[in-house]
Amino acid sequence: MDVFLSAGRERRVRTGHPWVFSNEIARVDGQAAPGDAVAVHTAKGEFLGVGHFNPQSLISIRLLSTRREDIDSADFFRERISRALAYRRTLYGDLDGLRLVYGESDFLPGLVVDRYGPVLSLQFLSLGMDKRRSLIVGALQELLQPQAIVARNDVGVRDLEGLPQQIEVLRGEVPEEVVVRENGLSFAVDILGGQKTGHFLDQKENHMALRERVAGGRVLDLFCYSGAWAVHAAHFGAREVLGIDISPGALDLARGNAARNALAQLCSFRQGDVFEVLRDLAARGERFDTIVLDPPAFVKSKKRLTEAVRGYLTINRRAIELLEPGGFLFTCSCSHHMQRDLFLDTLRQAALKARRTLRLIEVGGQALDHPVLLACPETEYLKCAILQAV
Amino acid sequence: MDVFLSAGRERRVRTGHPWVFSNEIARVDGQAAPGDAVAVHTAKGEFLGVGHFNPQSLISIRLLSTRREDIDSADFFRERISRALAYRRTLYGDLDGLRLVYGESDFLPGLVVDRYGPVLSLQFLSLGMDKRRSLIVGALQELLQPQAIVARNDVGVRDLEGLPQQIEVLRGEVPEEVVVRENGLSFAVDILGGQKTGHFLDQKENHMALRERVAGGRVLDLFCYSGAWAVHAAHFGAREVLGIDISPGALDLARGNAARNALAQLCSFRQGDVFEVLRDLAARGERFDTIVLDPPAFVKSKKRLTEAVRGYLTINRRAIELLEPGGFLFTCSCSHHMQRDLFLDTLRQAALKARRTLRLIEVGGQALDHPVLLACPETEYLKCAILQAV
Repeated sequence: MDVFLSAGRERRVRTGHPWVFSNEIARVDGQAAPGDAVAVHTAKGEFLGVGHFNPQSLISIRLLSTRREDIDSADFFRERISRALAYRRTLYGDLDGLRLVYGESDFLPGLVVDRYGPVLSLQFLSLGMDKRRSLIVGALQELLQPQAIVARNDVGVRDLEGLPQQIEVLRGEVPEEVVVRENGLSFAVDILGGQKTGHFLDQKENHMALRERVAGGRVLDLFCYSGAWAVHAAHFGAREVLGIDISPGALDLARGNAARNALAQLCSFRQGDVFEVLRDLAARGERFDTIVLDPPAFVKSKKRLTEAVRGYLTINRRAIELLEPGGFLFTCSCSHHMQRDLFLDTLRQAALKARRTLRLIEVGGQALDHPVLLACPETEYLKCAILQAV
Repeated sequence: MDVFLSAGRERRVRTGHPWVFSNEIARVDGQAAPGDAVAVHTAKGEFLGVGHFNPQSLISIRLLSTRREDIDSADFFRERISRALAYRRTLYGDLDGLRLVYGESDFLPGLVVDRYGPVLSLQFLSLGMDKRRSLIVGALQELLQPQAIVARNDVGVRDLEGLPQQIEVLRGEVPEEVVVRENGLSFAVDILGGQKTGHFLDQKENHMALRERVAGGRVLDLFCYSGAWAVHAAHFGAREVLGIDISPGALDLARGNAARNALAQLCSFRQGDVFEVLRDLAARGERFDTIVLDPPAFVKSKKRLTEAVRGYLTINRRAIELLEPGGFLFTCSCSHHMQRDLFLDTLRQAALKARRTLRLIEVGGQALDHPVLLACPETEYLKCAILQAV
């Protein structure tokens, strides 16, 4: 139940970073089963904190507290979750589409809780959290009385923890239709089948940045998924919006969302591979006043970074080529490993290849309900660069 | 009149970056006096553009155009400045406190033009621009009919160009009092004696970020200068604002600005060295709900970076120590060399030393009238990190 780090390996933990890597552990005293709570100490025996142990994972310990407290009690989870909820309340009042718990940033590493109206959608991303499902579900039930709680455990990072990928209804019944509000607009959420936990909650503030940048214009929304960018663009006065996605299910959602907001006449959605569609549009000489490029994570690991950079380069070059003079590109990367400077460098290369001069208007981040913990840079992942063709 | 680069040295210029460094030049054909317009070519003789030549400067050429055009004509300056004005008009309408021309980003490298109501305040930061004063002043007079045009050439970078530092009235008469609007508030500007060109125009959007983060709180404004942060904080509902600056002149301006906005009762301003004042406040156990730390550039060159990092570390640590739980720190760096990641790393260290856990809310940049040219990373300099004590 006691873990001792190798000499000098306490440094990161002392900065407030909650991870201990497998190669930083010198010794484990006592019997600790995978997923158990353990106390962590420096090589000299100084207490550092308590966390969840998973010897199968590269991240072998995720720290939950720097105090000697019982991290397996209902009280503990109720208190931590309450704090996370209180923070969201100060930010968004009672908004019904929110990330309520964002893992490490809410001092609950490995746990994600999203609220979609009456439904809570959870992700257990570590063995430690996975083993504490009933404590967590109990605390959420008590604090929020949701109509249903589901687990969207269909994510690759669970493989690294030795956990199976699956989607489950943990409690209650999922209503047939779930609709959430964002910036005054309505979006249906596919709770059990949608991407991520159902809706991209992390772009709330970036969607608002379309407001001054689409009026009267022709907008292209690439990887449009359920149409959040497209619907915002139409709402903010775009003349015409074209959304592209490879998934027919996503396009159905997007069409439904455009209709739900009475913006269906302005929006059309087309199925296709974005790389091919971009080539196509270029060949036909099409141009757009605003282009949104919000691809899924190309970089799931640091090893695949070079490949991913190539992907971003190609796709951004092609998008830039389609911009009208004065037009805006909203281009995103949701990969932590694609850091801001590398992303901007890639955009610089893309502009060079497209032979276009661009202003960098701003680089937005993830919505405030996905807080970044200064001590844990891994909690920062979303970049939304807004560029303008000069 | 023709400059040829060394083999391979055209790469940066081709990306749209307007600088040629002295060690990239292989040959100069013909007689080019310092400050003259020259045509730039690759080693193979391919035309790259035209720019201002200054063999005395490390930045030996600043490119103004990639076309063979007359960059010494009144037409050229009128057209370039008009484009810059048009861009600001789309952003800010007829706001009277604005950077109208921001050097490289407006394709007029080495020239800064700020508008303060009826006065234009210029900086000629390269020999090339300095030699073209009359063309520039003429174009500005024609386009804007200002009451006065002044040159705030009291900046260190002019040394690198072999130019003297001085402050001059180039045209007209400077009114006794100049007041500009920012976010609905009024600020007096010290045209001939103020810092930079008189007012920190680059924090407009960051000042607005105080809005949701000061109500009812006690606010500390460090390096307060003319009180822009302090006045915004009081306006947005702070209970009490304390501004600190070493300069008595700045404090007079700040007091005047608080009074001008009928916020004098909420604001007090005190003279002092910020490093010392912070130590003092800590010793007296004072705490603040919101702290603004907006120091002058500590890093004027890459060589002084280590020293500057130490300065930022100390000052941020001390400010973090004074934060109430839940309190906000607005901490800025206006040095290009202090890049975002290094700045955040420094803040991470400061939080560690202060033993405080912080959320990174967002990192704002410079106001939109100081546009960033994607191809020229040097045009990006301002970071305003908003942190919250957990």
